[in-house]
Amino acid sequence: MNGARVGLDIGGTKVHGIAIGPDGAVLAEDRAATTPGAEGVVKSAAAVVASLRDALDDSEISSIGVGIPGIVDTRAGTVKHAVNVGLDGNAFPLAALLGARTGAVVTLENDTNAATLGAHAVEDVDDLVYLSLGTGLAAGLYLGGALRRGFHGAAGEVGHLPVDPEGPVCGCGQRGCLELVASGAAIAAAWPTATGHPAAALFAAATAGDPAAVAVRDRFADGVAAAVRALALAVDPERVVIGGGVAAVGEPLREAIADALIRQTQTSPFLSSLELALRLRVVSAAPVAAIGAALITPTKD
Amino acid sequence: MNGARVGLDIGGTKVHGIAIGPDGAVLAEDRAATTPGAEGVVKSAAAVVASLRDALDDSEISSIGVGIPGIVDTRAGTVKHAVNVGLDGNAFPLAALLGARTGAVVTLENDTNAATLGAHAVEDVDDLVYLSLGTGLAAGLYLGGALRRGFHGAAGEVGHLPVDPEGPVCGCGQRGCLELVASGAAIAAAWPTATGHPAAALFAAATAGDPAAVAVRDRFADGVAAAVRALALAVDPERVVIGGGVAAVGEPLREAIADALIRQTQTSPFLSSLELALRLRVVSAAPVAAIGAALITPTKD
Repeated sequence: MNGARVGLDIGGTKVHGIAIGPDGAVLAEDRAATTPGAEGVVKSAAAVVASLRDALDDSEISSIGVGIPGIVDTRAGTVKHAVNVGLDGNAFPLAALLGARTGAVVTLENDTNAATLGAHAVEDVDDLVYLSLGTGLAAGLYLGGALRRGFHGAAGEVGHLPVDPEGPVCGCGQRGCLELVASGAAIAAAWPTATGHPAAALFAAATAGDPAAVAVRDRFADGVAAAVRALALAVDPERVVIGGGVAAVGEPLREAIADALIRQTQTSPFLSSLELALRLRVVSAAPVAAIGAALITPTKD
Repeated sequence: MNGARVGLDIGGTKVHGIAIGPDGAVLAEDRAATTPGAEGVVKSAAAVVASLRDALDDSEISSIGVGIPGIVDTRAGTVKHAVNVGLDGNAFPLAALLGARTGAVVTLENDTNAATLGAHAVEDVDDLVYLSLGTGLAAGLYLGGALRRGFHGAAGEVGHLPVDPEGPVCGCGQRGCLELVASGAAIAAAWPTATGHPAAALFAAATAGDPAAVAVRDRFADGVAAAVRALALAVDPERVVIGGGVAAVGEPLREAIADALIRQTQTSPFLSSLELALRLRVVSAAPVAAIGAALITPTKD
């Protein structure tokens, strides 16, 4: 594989594209607004690919990997229920359509799984869970050197672990799901801001000592810590990498989750011995989703 | 490997030994009472090996695998905290001691992981979670063709997921752990019997229509179903195999857990679509723990 590998992270607001060389170096990068809907998504993605191609003077594009929210069939190259990008119908053949538009082989992956590949590329371990704190809460699993998708592609869907039988009804139909507490949407609801990033505003206010902000931050961090504990007791990963939009908060986010883990496990010698707080990392700056998309390899199953 | 592979399942009350040929056929089987303590465990295990050797007219024993409750270091061949068999000290070198006594290469594994290897041998899938309903509640993970032990050996410890903040204190130091509801000990506490198997008595009474038994059974099944959901949302295995002492109940146990899963997921199209109830099997009769122990191969990590 001599050419550049292109990775596209297609989100609700923008398409983030990156081109990496055979040695893993970033050769080009571009962002464009996402036009929602079938034609819009293909067009937005193709425009980013064209811009990256222009920037790659003498390199061919050898492959395109796409990370997209929704239920992805990697073999068929289709995506379902990508509601955020206006593709709420069934089995949209994005790989074939973008392949025809760009002349490259296109492989799709769920956005969390793509970001998990990216987290693996930037972290120095072969065994990690990537916890995406975006609008929702979901994890990607990279275990013992391979992405774990699960039998129904549902591995890592810990946002839908119910933790409160009296809690509000979740979009999934259950009550009191973890996602209703531990997600960007939960922060936005509990700490609305007229402008800017609700999570950044919340953490800034909490750091400044606002007691209401401290309470909202700690409740959020407790929920994320519960997700970390559930994942640790299920698969016991070497590292837990926190990403997604909320991770823009950076180190204060890691500290809040680590504090919550220490608080929650202090009565238990067994859980304390797992040293979960020490396994946490936050990837706020690295464009893990696009890097991971570039590293997608077609599945053989 | 031409000789017979011996597997020993060392439990609190008995040592169950099995010898299997190169083709996987069971060549010999034996059981003996476990004498607790360091010398007792080695002696009980060696006696079962001697009895199996006598029964194997013309086959050599090529290896011995041991499944034992406790924290096992497979590389060092040691076990810690095997309280049930009277080995509550640190790092007991069982592999070396049993090897010296029997002249064979001995490899240790945690009993749940050994049973998971056995469940994989008797089930026709390369991807399963083995849920052991013994005194406690723990799972073994066989994912994509390999045993998953976890970074600290804690993979599958879902018995210590807290589900009730107001619940009683667990032996692990947390409050309201799943194991306090979904385990053989929980059944024995809620449905004590003067003689016989509390789980068998409970399920018989529930089947006969005793409303108190139905309530206890359903509470237990709800807890097991919560463990299945947590594991499914974490790793999404192809199959969930129920084993351990409570699995002696057989098909009524599978039905009770399947009913609980259907009840719990009926409000959620997402969870219903995972068809968790259809993934359940119960291995009541098969001696999966001893078979799995025979199949242990030394770890290379």
